[in-house]
Amino acid sequence: MRAVVMHAPGDVRVDQVADPAIELPTDAVFRVTAACVCGSDLWPYRGHNEITEPKQMGHEYIGVVEEIGDEVTTLKVGDAVVGSFMASDNTCEICAAGFQSRCAHVVGMGGIGTQAEYARVPWADGTLVRIPGTPTHAQQMSLLAASDVLGTGWFAADAAQAGPGKTVAVVGDGAVGLLGILAARRFGADRIIAMSRHADRQALARGYGATDIVTERGEEGVERITEMTGGYGAHSTIEAVGTQESMLQAIGATRRGGHVGFVGVSHDVTLDGSMLFGATVHLLGGPAPVRRYLPELVDLIMSGEIDAGGVFDLSLPLDEAAEAYRAMDERRATKVHLAV
Amino acid sequence: MRAVVMHAPGDVRVDQVADPAIELPTDAVFRVTAACVCGSDLWPYRGHNEITEPKQMGHEYIGVVEEIGDEVTTLKVGDAVVGSFMASDNTCEICAAGFQSRCAHVVGMGGIGTQAEYARVPWADGTLVRIPGTPTHAQQMSLLAASDVLGTGWFAADAAQAGPGKTVAVVGDGAVGLLGILAARRFGADRIIAMSRHADRQALARGYGATDIVTERGEEGVERITEMTGGYGAHSTIEAVGTQESMLQAIGATRRGGHVGFVGVSHDVTLDGSMLFGATVHLLGGPAPVRRYLPELVDLIMSGEIDAGGVFDLSLPLDEAAEAYRAMDERRATKVHLAV
Repeated sequence: MRAVVMHAPGDVRVDQVADPAIELPTDAVFRVTAACVCGSDLWPYRGHNEITEPKQMGHEYIGVVEEIGDEVTTLKVGDAVVGSFMASDNTCEICAAGFQSRCAHVVGMGGIGTQAEYARVPWADGTLVRIPGTPTHAQQMSLLAASDVLGTGWFAADAAQAGPGKTVAVVGDGAVGLLGILAARRFGADRIIAMSRHADRQALARGYGATDIVTERGEEGVERITEMTGGYGAHSTIEAVGTQESMLQAIGATRRGGHVGFVGVSHDVTLDGSMLFGATVHLLGGPAPVRRYLPELVDLIMSGEIDAGGVFDLSLPLDEAAEAYRAMDERRATKVHLAV
Repeated sequence: MRAVVMHAPGDVRVDQVADPAIELPTDAVFRVTAACVCGSDLWPYRGHNEITEPKQMGHEYIGVVEEIGDEVTTLKVGDAVVGSFMASDNTCEICAAGFQSRCAHVVGMGGIGTQAEYARVPWADGTLVRIPGTPTHAQQMSLLAASDVLGTGWFAADAAQAGPGKTVAVVGDGAVGLLGILAARRFGADRIIAMSRHADRQALARGYGATDIVTERGEEGVERITEMTGGYGAHSTIEAVGTQESMLQAIGATRRGGHVGFVGVSHDVTLDGSMLFGATVHLLGGPAPVRRYLPELVDLIMSGEIDAGGVFDLSLPLDEAAEAYRAMDERRATKVHLAV
């Protein structure tokens, strides 16, 4: 089959690789109907993560079940499905508590690669959620977003306890930050402040429900949020970048006793203990347990209540994956859909 | 009046200083009836915090109101009172959300000094809680503990979400850790694992409700807790030390998705962002909002439902403050009561 393979920083190709097969009786193999490029795929692309050997890429997906292992009971061949970027058994104590991305038997789909014609998914019963009915193209784009960026933004807003009566600050105007805005709006937040200095992202942010835009960053950004919130800071802050500056900006913009949900994959971040002690904020972050939210997200998408597909501003066939990565890297696209 | 003054590391004296007076109409002055030495007082005593000039010490107290400012409405002269180590207006948005230790107008009692015959308390209405009836000596000791170490242990257990069905790990066997055990027991935790290698502290820990003792520290301690919890780690962890080792031990001992309440005053702690991202734990810590819990703690103490006074294993008159500090420093005492 064809699959996207990263050979070195900046070197993404569509190669012929072996078809995936059932390896364990709890596996399924599905035909990928849509995949996409993630902001986190850019870390190795830009040379920030080492690439020791050619690696199949991609962890976001929707698809149709092609084959199931002997122990798979909730799915059948032909089911349209969506799953998280982390495969989880959904039965261990960590999953039961809603942290499926940290399942005791977790398998990252990024280690398998879904920017391909087919993919194997471990713990198929635990990981995949059936898509009912026949989604429109727009719904397919939302379902694809649910696989990671929508689910991650949703978790960030939940971790930040966005809700009625709250002012929410959002650090990061990529797909996750933008969909964090959508989630915060859905959770009933009074005021949503998007921190963004790009006109196109600002427009998307407003479309998803941002009430205010702050263009300042770092210390200046923190001061601006503090001024806008009566000197207190935001109740809830979503961090969706993963750098030292963005983490300090998120914590600094949050009032004492407030909540920070951080979902940007950390790169070279170190937090001072005295700063954290002084900040006295609730901090929760990590790889989002998207599986916790997927059934609800599928319902909301299929009933037309949310539309998250707007983050895809470029659609390319799988064969043009190299251009998809370039467009993301050069910020010509927020997020690229790969049609398979 | 007489007051405890630290002149240099290891140099604590009882000096004659000016009597405190009402400075703002929201102040009160109270006669201190009991004070004590805090683990955090040992940081400057041991030279870890700089002492640039002689400094009045102490931030824990019970007392009797001696004088009130013109705007104080809820207290009268003669009232027996207890208050937090942080004075707070109890009306700002941060206080209203239960984070009085980070009040918009907070004043640390440590900057005033309660190891003295009298002390001024800012925001008297917001800070002080009236003690009903006539407490026994044991109840006075518990009320004194409520002023900081009990309230701090209570907050740590609350921040760690200790409760029914939960296994709680406690890092630190000082007064705060021990009273964190008492709080976790009171909150209904199933299992409480005290991390301690001192026989006397282990006995106190068991007395307060610890069901298990782990003597290993650091990585070994984490491995032991992991083994004891089916490979998952504790649901809830209380960190009551404030060092790099204790923070990593607390985070490491906690299961993915679990809760860490950290209340040890941070010293030279730096947390790696990738580690935090991977840990995926809820983190909440800082100076405990003791005022949130004080009304409930006063009720529980006066009705005889909790007894926190056992952490005081040495009682000395104010004049012997130097010996009190020495005893704490040399770990001859867990916590020293200063009778005023």
